[in-house]
Amino acid sequence: MFSGAQLSLHPMRDDFVAIILGAVTALDPWRAQLRIETDDVSTLVVGPPEALFPAMRDLFVRAAASEAHCVLHATVSRGCPGEPDDPICAPGAARPAGGAMAARVAAAAERVSGAPPAGRVVAAQFSIYPLGVADAPGGHMAEIMGCIDFLKASGCFERSKHFCTKLRGDAGPVFATLAEAFASFGAPEGHVAMDVTISANSPSAV
Amino acid sequence: MFSGAQLSLHPMRDDFVAIILGAVTALDPWRAQLRIETDDVSTLVVGPPEALFPAMRDLFVRAAASEAHCVLHATVSRGCPGEPDDPICAPGAARPAGGAMAARVAAAAERVSGAPPAGRVVAAQFSIYPLGVADAPGGHMAEIMGCIDFLKASGCFERSKHFCTKLRGDAGPVFATLAEAFASFGAPEGHVAMDVTISANSPSAV
Repeated sequence: MFSGAQLSLHPMRDDFVAIILGAVTALDPWRAQLRIETDDVSTLVVGPPEALFPAMRDLFVRAAASEAHCVLHATVSRGCPGEPDDPICAPGAARPAGGAMAARVAAAAERVSGAPPAGRVVAAQFSIYPLGVADAPGGHMAEIMGCIDFLKASGCFERSKHFCTKLRGDAGPVFATLAEAFASFGAPEGHVAMDVTISANSPSAV
Repeated sequence: MFSGAQLSLHPMRDDFVAIILGAVTALDPWRAQLRIETDDVSTLVVGPPEALFPAMRDLFVRAAASEAHCVLHATVSRGCPGEPDDPICAPGAARPAGGAMAARVAAAAERVSGAPPAGRVVAAQFSIYPLGVADAPGGHMAEIMGCIDFLKASGCFERSKHFCTKLRGDAGPVFATLAEAFASFGAPEGHVAMDVTISANSPSAV
């Protein structure tokens, strides 16, 4: 199953280039598990879910350590029928889960509770799109509503917004929550996309 | 049909707050057609497609006039079954189109060809997610592939990337292309989401 993300990192400071280049070094420990390509709008990161989300976390926490107001945007996808398969994407422990919704919600929340803190408070908001599941019971909205139940149990839930859900907390459990949402909702072998925005050091954060 | 966007504007400069506040005044002519609410991560803009995309264009072109490297991210949605209906969203000329794919592709490209330039070159990349259409002929991928055919005919196509398509050109036709993608693909009354990133003044643009 092909999986990966297009990442764009935005430090809102004159020295944004230096902050980005410094943060990219935080990806070094993950490079053996990921394929990485960059252009002027985003960086493609291809690999399994269990490497994607920790790599995003490390990239973002390193950028936020500059104390600049930083935002990371990620377009994350798995199982797109239009993408080639790639052996680097083979999921291990984070293999997408199937089964009864209540059990998936409880198992995902339990795994997030064990996520170690990263020492940086972040706000995050995201949408999950389970595609091609109109014929499943309840259609795509049943998967979205189940995911929202999980988010409310994750310890990171801040509030529901139009078109997305907002989280707030330490980057460790917040990125673990995003990883669980990605792997636990939508069909296990299905096409699932996420649109993620993560913010730190905002002058307008409450 | 409820429609709108969560917008986040990122000027990568020390004076990002002043650039954002200045750019927000470009929304003033659109306020009668839109409902606008802001928090520390994004600004919600609710309204019909024919106001949403020109408002985004004006916001972004104003910010880019600072010559700072600016990025706008938009999570755009229409027809979400979990959202309340709202009279402000009633689409006029941009009512989502149905019918044969080839006719939709040609009509959308024809409308983009009439978009006036805005005087600012931008790069954009986006993904479109037609939700709940697994039972349509070809499923959700048929709508996505039809949209990509339109993008290739839009005059703004740069290249296909994993998980998204990249556009480049004057902000006028680029935002018109995004508006047409949103209104012409996916079921006319269906749930469609888009994940959009637009960049200007990047030091790494080719």
